Amino acid sequence: MTYSQAVLNGDRLALSRLLTQVENDEIEGRAALIDLFPYTGKAHLIGVTGAPGTGKSSLVNQLALYYRKTENKRVAIVAVDPSSPFTGGAVLGDRVRMRDLAGDTGVFIRSMATRGSLGGLAQSTANMAQVFDAAGFDVVIIETVGAGQSEVDVAHLAHTTLVVEAPGLGDEIQAIKAGILEIADVLVINKADHPGVENTEKALRSMLDLAHPPERIFRHHGSTMQVAAQKQDSSSVQLWIPPIQRTVATEGRGIVELIQAIARHVVYLTQSGDWSVRERARLEVELDALIREELVSRFRQDVPKDQYESMLEKITQRELSPGEAVRILMNGRLK
Amino acid sequence: MTYSQAVLNGDRLALSRLLTQVENDEIEGRAALIDLFPYTGKAHLIGVTGAPGTGKSSLVNQLALYYRKTENKRVAIVAVDPSSPFTGGAVLGDRVRMRDLAGDTGVFIRSMATRGSLGGLAQSTANMAQVFDAAGFDVVIIETVGAGQSEVDVAHLAHTTLVVEAPGLGDEIQAIKAGILEIADVLVINKADHPGVENTEKALRSMLDLAHPPERIFRHHGSTMQVAAQKQDSSSVQLWIPPIQRTVATEGRGIVELIQAIARHVVYLTQSGDWSVRERARLEVELDALIREELVSRFRQDVPKDQYESMLEKITQRELSPGEAVRILMNGRLK
Repeated sequence: MTYSQAVLNGDRLALSRLLTQVENDEIEGRAALIDLFPYTGKAHLIGVTGAPGTGKSSLVNQLALYYRKTENKRVAIVAVDPSSPFTGGAVLGDRVRMRDLAGDTGVFIRSMATRGSLGGLAQSTANMAQVFDAAGFDVVIIETVGAGQSEVDVAHLAHTTLVVEAPGLGDEIQAIKAGILEIADVLVINKADHPGVENTEKALRSMLDLAHPPERIFRHHGSTMQVAAQKQDSSSVQLWIPPIQRTVATEGRGIVELIQAIARHVVYLTQSGDWSVRERARLEVELDALIREELVSRFRQDVPKDQYESMLEKITQRELSPGEAVRILMNGRLK
Repeated sequence: MTYSQAVLNGDRLALSRLLTQVENDEIEGRAALIDLFPYTGKAHLIGVTGAPGTGKSSLVNQLALYYRKTENKRVAIVAVDPSSPFTGGAVLGDRVRMRDLAGDTGVFIRSMATRGSLGGLAQSTANMAQVFDAAGFDVVIIETVGAGQSEVDVAHLAHTTLVVEAPGLGDEIQAIKAGILEIADVLVINKADHPGVENTEKALRSMLDLAHPPERIFRHHGSTMQVAAQKQDSSSVQLWIPPIQRTVATEGRGIVELIQAIARHVVYLTQSGDWSVRERARLEVELDALIREELVSRFRQDVPKDQYESMLEKITQRELSPGEAVRILMNGRLK
């Protein structure tokens, strides 16, 4: 029996091994993704992003606990840590707090570190989410550290993106997050028992007003035209303004309300048609990444290494510009 | 006369227009890059990165002033702001402080916002640096907000990378920067008159020890093998341990010492052979990006849009996996 079949049958050990193959982009992993693909498309992918210190991991744990124990859903967590592009090795400290979930076979937790480019990381994360989806997990939570481009990639991957803030982060730090706010479907102020929570909420609200003027509501997931078309078709479509939810994850406070806000977002996605728009956009990103990768790998096969090296040498000597070198390499290939 | 010729003759207006063409990736811009390429390779590219609130822009201004007024060098500044991938529009507030340099034709300042992917931004920045290089600017300072992947890209672009810190940023914020420290050639603690400067230096020093164990010194710019070879060739090669420099940019304190540290780094780069290693690595990144772009653009020309769309539709319906779709699209192309 292949790992794919075993995974479909609920074998945890096979799941764990397959995830490793997929994370390392092994041939077996690629084959399994093709086998499993028909079984995907059912899970609710939830992205959770926020700066270190916002208590994001505790929050993820509480969400997982609730989905598991109260709604009896199977929950997978992919914790992505792109903080160090060089050293690798995910920060696992936070996961120590997951003891509440240990031993529960309806929960699966996986940590990933950045290997190479963030583009590659997003692809790996998407692939792992697909494996969990096929394996029958109802909810896949993808947790990332707030560090720029990675949140945007998560937003393209997730159906629902939570952006986690906490009181007491300086205004200067907040300023950089304007872009991140625009990808938020739900804003969470965790550590809401800390002083300054009112200021944080006020700041978020004014940034939300900037980030979500009515005419831009639909624009942040790409396929503007499609959404606009659907908007015309259905006069009953509501707009989604990201709600701000307060939580104290360490005490489990505000979790039920957050779960309800996420559920409302799913209803919105379904009724507005945005669910399938996001699905399609996500799959298009994935398809394009695979195409790019295949093109480059074929190019590398076609162009002898020494020809490439001699071009690079000429560029270094300023005998040839990179643009000219590409033209020569491409034309040589067609012969 | 073309813009390229005018730029080589020192025409500022032509320079400004050409930079716009290059930033927008217009055909004229691409042609000019090819024309100008033989004149590049002389400028010292200095990357300056740091979180908002570290006073990075003031520091860049001070460096530019010093290079200009004391060393009589021509200085260009490219200020990159990748904070908002959606709204666009570089934060120009900081540049108000550049009044000291206004009207000086030996100084040129350009702000850029993120348009689309960070990969594209790095390419644009590299191209603009090339234009400045060809235009005879001795020093090109590339300033980025510390936000993850972008620093890594700057490190690949610059000969010397300064990472700017300031006292009083929390430990949790520091933790995420471990990866960023590894790209630093010079560490700067700006606002060194603020309380907590000793703690910041202590924290940086212990992180440096982690990030730069002796055997890894040479590894952070990719071409390990080449450097290793050169290392064997020359027994006189020193190692470079990033110095920590304290500055108070608003008062011009520590600037001379910082300039000296940068000069020592240039000496190190030259003597160790690392200068040409970095040059080559940078040009290779650029060549690869151009190759990738050309491959994708040829693919788009070859594959009819409706074939691509129908593949995407089948993927969305789970009739085909992305991997299978790529195989079909590629094979169809070869016929």
